[in-house]
Amino acid sequence: MKYEDYVCLGYSPRKQELITVLRFKAKNPKRAAGALAAESSIGTWQEVKTEKSYVKKLAAKVFFLRKEGKHYITKIAYPIELFEPGNIPNLLSSVAGNIFGMKELQSLRLEDITMPRKFVKSFEGPHYGIEGIRKVMRVKKRPLIGTIIKPKLGLKPKDHARVALEAWLGGCDIVKDDENLASQKFNEFEKRLRITMKAKEKAERETGEKKAYVVNVTAETLEMLERAEKVEKLGNGYCMIDIITCGFSALQSLRKNTRLIIHGHRAMHAALTRNKNQGISMKVIAKLARLAGVDQLHVGAVFGKMHEGKEEVKKNVEALKEDIGLKPTMPIASGGLSPLDVPHLVDFFGPDVIIQMGGGIHAHPQGTFAGARAARQAIEAVMQGEKLESYAKKHEELRQALDFFKK
Amino acid sequence: MKYEDYVCLGYSPRKQELITVLRFKAKNPKRAAGALAAESSIGTWQEVKTEKSYVKKLAAKVFFLRKEGKHYITKIAYPIELFEPGNIPNLLSSVAGNIFGMKELQSLRLEDITMPRKFVKSFEGPHYGIEGIRKVMRVKKRPLIGTIIKPKLGLKPKDHARVALEAWLGGCDIVKDDENLASQKFNEFEKRLRITMKAKEKAERETGEKKAYVVNVTAETLEMLERAEKVEKLGNGYCMIDIITCGFSALQSLRKNTRLIIHGHRAMHAALTRNKNQGISMKVIAKLARLAGVDQLHVGAVFGKMHEGKEEVKKNVEALKEDIGLKPTMPIASGGLSPLDVPHLVDFFGPDVIIQMGGGIHAHPQGTFAGARAARQAIEAVMQGEKLESYAKKHEELRQALDFFKK
Repeated sequence: MKYEDYVCLGYSPRKQELITVLRFKAKNPKRAAGALAAESSIGTWQEVKTEKSYVKKLAAKVFFLRKEGKHYITKIAYPIELFEPGNIPNLLSSVAGNIFGMKELQSLRLEDITMPRKFVKSFEGPHYGIEGIRKVMRVKKRPLIGTIIKPKLGLKPKDHARVALEAWLGGCDIVKDDENLASQKFNEFEKRLRITMKAKEKAERETGEKKAYVVNVTAETLEMLERAEKVEKLGNGYCMIDIITCGFSALQSLRKNTRLIIHGHRAMHAALTRNKNQGISMKVIAKLARLAGVDQLHVGAVFGKMHEGKEEVKKNVEALKEDIGLKPTMPIASGGLSPLDVPHLVDFFGPDVIIQMGGGIHAHPQGTFAGARAARQAIEAVMQGEKLESYAKKHEELRQALDFFKK
Repeated sequence: MKYEDYVCLGYSPRKQELITVLRFKAKNPKRAAGALAAESSIGTWQEVKTEKSYVKKLAAKVFFLRKEGKHYITKIAYPIELFEPGNIPNLLSSVAGNIFGMKELQSLRLEDITMPRKFVKSFEGPHYGIEGIRKVMRVKKRPLIGTIIKPKLGLKPKDHARVALEAWLGGCDIVKDDENLASQKFNEFEKRLRITMKAKEKAERETGEKKAYVVNVTAETLEMLERAEKVEKLGNGYCMIDIITCGFSALQSLRKNTRLIIHGHRAMHAALTRNKNQGISMKVIAKLARLAGVDQLHVGAVFGKMHEGKEEVKKNVEALKEDIGLKPTMPIASGGLSPLDVPHLVDFFGPDVIIQMGGGIHAHPQGTFAGARAARQAIEAVMQGEKLESYAKKHEELRQALDFFKK
C-alpha cells in the first residue's frame, strides 16, 4: 500500500476502533496524513513485497482532514487488533512513535485519543480513584489540602519530618515529597519514611484526623517496587511516582504490584506538552495515566507559577473523569498556589480536587504551621460560602496570608 | 533564596558538579535563568521559612547567560549531591522536570548535560558496547547490516519467520521486530520468538555466519523482564526495548536483569526532540540511554525518511562514543534507507554502525532475499573501495536495487 491508500475521507469508524486526533503542518497534507496512518499501523515508505493480503485489513484509515490556519487537523481510525491489550508503551510506540520525526511533516502534535471500552478494560485503572481516596482520608465533601515539603531538596530527614508535622497539625491532609527527592545521601528514603511516618502518626493522634504522607518512590522499577513495599509494610497508604521520568512501563508495574494510593507527579510533561505544534497534549497524558492506574494526578494549577490556562486544565480534568468504565482519577492543583487562590480553585475544579501549596504555606510570615492553618481556613471559608476577607477577620493566620501573598 | 540569588555569572564550576546547557526565551532572562536553577534544585517561587542554612550549599548556580537571536543560552552547575546515584528518573525530575512548564519562560530546551565521572560510574552503562557486539556477531571490521520485518504489523509468526529467514540468508546480520510489535493476537510474543529463532538457527547453519534476532520485549516492566528471560533461556542473545515509550525506570531494570544485548529503539523521541525551542535534545537522550546500558541505539538515518540532518546525528553519535568511563554504544542508522545510501552512511558513520533497511530491502523487485543480498553487496563494495555502480555490474541484485531505488 502507498501512503495515499491510507486516506479514506468520509469513512465512519467502527465501534471497535481506536481514534487519534492529530495537528500537523506539511506541504502535501493528504500524502502526509496517509504517511501518518501508514507509519503508525502497517506501512512504510515503500510498498514491500512481503505484504500479505490478510494484513491489509489492519491498515489505519485517515477519515478526517481539515485545514486550520497554517496547520491541518486529521483523525485516524485504528483497528484495535493492532495493539496489545494492557500495554501502554506498545500503544504509544504505534500511535505516538516514529510519526513525530517524519520528513513528510514539519510538525505534529497528538491532541487526543479515544479507545473502545473493551480495550480500556484491559488496563487496571485507578484502584481507589476519587471515592476511594475520600473514604481512606475520611473527608466527605471538601477539597483535600496538601503541601509539598520545601526546600525541594536539602532538608535532613529530621527537619523534613518536622516541617511535615507542622503542616499536618496546621490542617493539611496530605504532605508530600517533592518530585526530585528520591534517596539522596542528605535524605535517604527509608530514614525519611520512618521518621516522617512517626510525625504523621503523632499528627493523627493530636488532630483526630486521617493524614497522608505521599512519599516519592521514583527509581529504577524493581528498586521502586521495593520502596513501595516498605511503605506498605510500615502501614503508610500512599506513594508518589514521577510518571513521565519513570515512564509508563514502570507506572504500570507499580499499579500491578502495590495497594498504595498512587499519586502521579508529571515532572517533565511540559517538554512534551507545552508546544502547541509538536508533541503530545497533557490531555492524552492524563488519559494514559488514568488507564495505568494513577489515583490522583497533577493537572495544572490554573492560577499559579505554571503556564497552563483554564481551557487546557479543564480538558485534563475531563480526561480524568469522563465515563470510560474506569474509576475517576482525583485532579491535583499544584504549582505556585497560595490561600488567595482557593476560592477560584474551588470554583474551577469543584470540591473534588487536591489543592497543594508549597511556597504558599511555608512562606507564611509565621511559618509552616500558620501557613497550613491559613490554607485550611481558606477551604473552610469557601465551604461555608464566606469571602476570604470576611473569614480572615476572625482568623489571624488567614489574614496574615492574605496580606503577605497579595504583595 | 530568591530567583536572582541563583545567578552567579563568572562562577567556575567545580569538578564534582553536573552541568546543563539550556536554550530559552523569556522577558526577563536573568530572573528566568535564576528560576530555572531554583526550581531544578532547592528553590521555589517564594522564600520559605523552612530553609535551613545547611541547605544553601546545594543551590544550583547559573554561571553563563548569553543572548542568541531571540533566545538565551544558559549553563547551570549542580552540586552532585542533589542527585541519587544510578537513578535516571530522579536526575530528569530535577534538571528536566518542572522547569519546562514555568510561566517565567516562553520556551525551554535542554540541549546538553555533562556529568562528573564518579556519578557516571554509578550507572551500569552498556554490557557489550561496540566491541562486545562485534565479538558476539563475529564481524570484525565492516558495518553490520540489519533489517526490520515489514509489514510493521500484521504478519503471522510463520510469515514473520519466513521473511526473517530470507533476510538472513540474503546476507543480513540482524533481523529485528518493528517498534510496535509486542504481543498482539495476530503475532504472539512466544510463538514468534520460537519460530523465528528456528529460522535463525537454520540461517546460521546454512551461511556459517552468526545471526541475530532482535525481538521486541516492550511491555510493562515485569512482563518485559519475563519476556527477556524467555529470550535468554531459548538461547537468543538479543532483545529490543522502546526506550522512550517504556521509560527510563524500565530500561534500567532491563539492563540490571538481563545479559542480552540491548537494542534501543527511540520511538516517540521526536515528540521531545524535534522542536528546536521546547523539549530535550536527542543528544541528551542518547547520553542517558548509554548510561542506562543500551548497547546499540537508533540515532538517525541522515539520508532516509526521518527529519534529522548530519549535524544533529553527529552529536548523537559523539554522545555514544565520548570518553566518559563507560563502554561506547553502537549507533544504528535506520528509517527510509536503501542500498543506495550505504556509501554515504559509511562515509558519515565510519565502520562502527548498524545499517538497517526495512523498505530498502523488502521492496526490492525480487523480494527480501534479493534485497538483503543487494544490501550486503553494497557493504562489500564500500569495504573494497569500489563504487556501487561498478560493483553492480558483477552483482545482479545490487544492480536491480540501484535501478529501483533511484526512481
